Amino acid sequence: MVAWKGETEIMIKNFLMTPGPTPVPPEVLLAMAKPIIHHRTPQFQKILQEVEENLKYIFQTREDVMILTSSGTGAMESAVSNLLSPKDKAITVQGGKFGERWTELCQAYGVETVIINVEWGKAVDPKVIADTLAKTKAKAVFTTLCETSTGVITDIKAIAEVTKKTDAVLVVDAISGLGAVECRMDEWGIDAVISGSQKGLMIPPGLAFIAVSQKAWKLVEQSKCPKYYFDLKAAKKAVAKTDTPWTPAITLVIGLNEALKILKQETLEGIINRHKKMAKACREAAKALGLKLYSPTASSDAVTAVEVPQGIDGEKLVKTMRDEYGVGIAGGQAQLKGKVFRIASMGYMNQFDIIVAISCLETVLSKMGYKFELGAGVKAAQKVFLE
Amino acid sequence: MVAWKGETEIMIKNFLMTPGPTPVPPEVLLAMAKPIIHHRTPQFQKILQEVEENLKYIFQTREDVMILTSSGTGAMESAVSNLLSPKDKAITVQGGKFGERWTELCQAYGVETVIINVEWGKAVDPKVIADTLAKTKAKAVFTTLCETSTGVITDIKAIAEVTKKTDAVLVVDAISGLGAVECRMDEWGIDAVISGSQKGLMIPPGLAFIAVSQKAWKLVEQSKCPKYYFDLKAAKKAVAKTDTPWTPAITLVIGLNEALKILKQETLEGIINRHKKMAKACREAAKALGLKLYSPTASSDAVTAVEVPQGIDGEKLVKTMRDEYGVGIAGGQAQLKGKVFRIASMGYMNQFDIIVAISCLETVLSKMGYKFELGAGVKAAQKVFLE
Repeated sequence: MVAWKGETEIMIKNFLMTPGPTPVPPEVLLAMAKPIIHHRTPQFQKILQEVEENLKYIFQTREDVMILTSSGTGAMESAVSNLLSPKDKAITVQGGKFGERWTELCQAYGVETVIINVEWGKAVDPKVIADTLAKTKAKAVFTTLCETSTGVITDIKAIAEVTKKTDAVLVVDAISGLGAVECRMDEWGIDAVISGSQKGLMIPPGLAFIAVSQKAWKLVEQSKCPKYYFDLKAAKKAVAKTDTPWTPAITLVIGLNEALKILKQETLEGIINRHKKMAKACREAAKALGLKLYSPTASSDAVTAVEVPQGIDGEKLVKTMRDEYGVGIAGGQAQLKGKVFRIASMGYMNQFDIIVAISCLETVLSKMGYKFELGAGVKAAQKVFLE
Repeated sequence: MVAWKGETEIMIKNFLMTPGPTPVPPEVLLAMAKPIIHHRTPQFQKILQEVEENLKYIFQTREDVMILTSSGTGAMESAVSNLLSPKDKAITVQGGKFGERWTELCQAYGVETVIINVEWGKAVDPKVIADTLAKTKAKAVFTTLCETSTGVITDIKAIAEVTKKTDAVLVVDAISGLGAVECRMDEWGIDAVISGSQKGLMIPPGLAFIAVSQKAWKLVEQSKCPKYYFDLKAAKKAVAKTDTPWTPAITLVIGLNEALKILKQETLEGIINRHKKMAKACREAAKALGLKLYSPTASSDAVTAVEVPQGIDGEKLVKTMRDEYGVGIAGGQAQLKGKVFRIASMGYMNQFDIIVAISCLETVLSKMGYKFELGAGVKAAQKVFLE
């Protein structure tokens, strides 16, 4: 979108560096702009079949990946309402806004929650989960791969080592992170992986995904929570016929097919390495500018949260970058409002998007009176990409 | 989409005449193909505000129209889970596949259903609803404006006259029909109107809508069903801030904004007249071809169901029209499989789309050996448009 400053002033070109939605490749946008086709046709079925296959690759699973037309929160709800029953006990890990959502969801369905509160900016210690599981015999552990609100990555592999040895199932909100950082469902032994369309998968929001292990499927069979639209038995039955139980967001599925082909061509290894470099460049740039990382011990490769330096108005920083320069980064959410800014390194982005973000950050910080050596951030980022 | 018959044979140009999805105007497709913007920005908020205003016009209501990212079934679920509590009593009107969905939804939430079974192809008698309400004191009546599976239109105005005089609320599934046929929420006294994006509103599937009257909102306050993603209190609170509770399907909302502008320019009166003519043309064409309407006493202006004549394979008819000629119409669903075909007159269609559908129908019926006067259907349709 071209925007203008004043009437005849300067053309603004937009760069989107937010942790969802993330930029959509032009091939995907154009595929979605084709005249719509009906979903109960051989034409659409062929697309759905390719999507199903490629989603399994991204999820690193042999299980069916069920496609829901909703935001990621809808798929999170499907995990709670399909795996559990009222009065069941579940552990929720709360170290940010999205961890808290698990607690709210469980409580909405009358599930008893054992909350592990983690200081924002830190990752949960898998030992705490082991101890809590041993004590409470909870049926499920609800976690977050990459907590978008704080930029923290959770050691899901280590947590799966814990849950694997128990009857409890491990549910991972990988909405932020899947298709950007490592998350090996089958190999690690995760029981339910949830994702959304507008992050690593590079398409607009509107689709959500859930894959469920054999161990977790047994809980689905026992679940007594009411459900209909998010009924996973209906979804699984439909997958078996290369169909969806309800009318899907057809154009988004068509876009997803193109996006998955791009991701598959890069390979998961390539994708993960690209994200590692981009995030490292963000972190090194921030440090070179004398800024502090909000989550220095567990900073994820999908989004980097940086503390707003003293004397700088954090909300104005984000607003100026977006409205005056067209570079969209994210501010802080909830208790972090005005205290951090967040730069995504997720999806259809490469090293030069990061350079643009850092360059714009330097430009606006400079204008706002923050003292630093101009160019130091960009230089540090470039150094990482040259490694 | 261009498809090819054989290797070097003939170019197939596609025409979509199905009752959802319906064709999307090119302006809308191109608006959705623009680089994506973030939803928590003044830019998106401006779009959402326009959408909210124009939805009220289409819904003919002063109430907020809540936008959900889901198929229409999600909005139907939100009506059940937000208006009722387990063990409440509700009347469901079943005269087709979508009426049955109300019953299934109520039963999923432990709501006691009083089912009014209506012969498929007929409309419910409002007097039966009055009698059933008097007898059962049900809290809600769930109905369908246009039953897509049979092409039947329900006299919602007359039913609202009945429910208005009682404590019961009237919930209308207007997924098929809104933006095509009359449905005046406030004037008629409907308590909840539900719709979807891929029918009269002319955008791809993925968004659903619900508007709730003051009378029905009191039930929302008392409801004890579990809900989270479809929580209408959260949705209403978000609307007040020109926001959505969860990440919305951004590109679909942007497309909807363009579609609503087109609809508003034509005016509701213009839209309704256009659909009346298109549907009448379908009906007259069918009769001129010696075919029988499936719902002659209550045929809706959004979709026309026609009986497959004896000796003709109904599924093959639909398949041949689609795969050999590129003209997508719908076959029969559930018990009507193979027995009817359905031609939509809904959304981004005008008289010449109907002519194409009838012309293709004549072509394929002729090839299949059905005896009739070639051109009689097209002539009858043209006559209607010339009136």
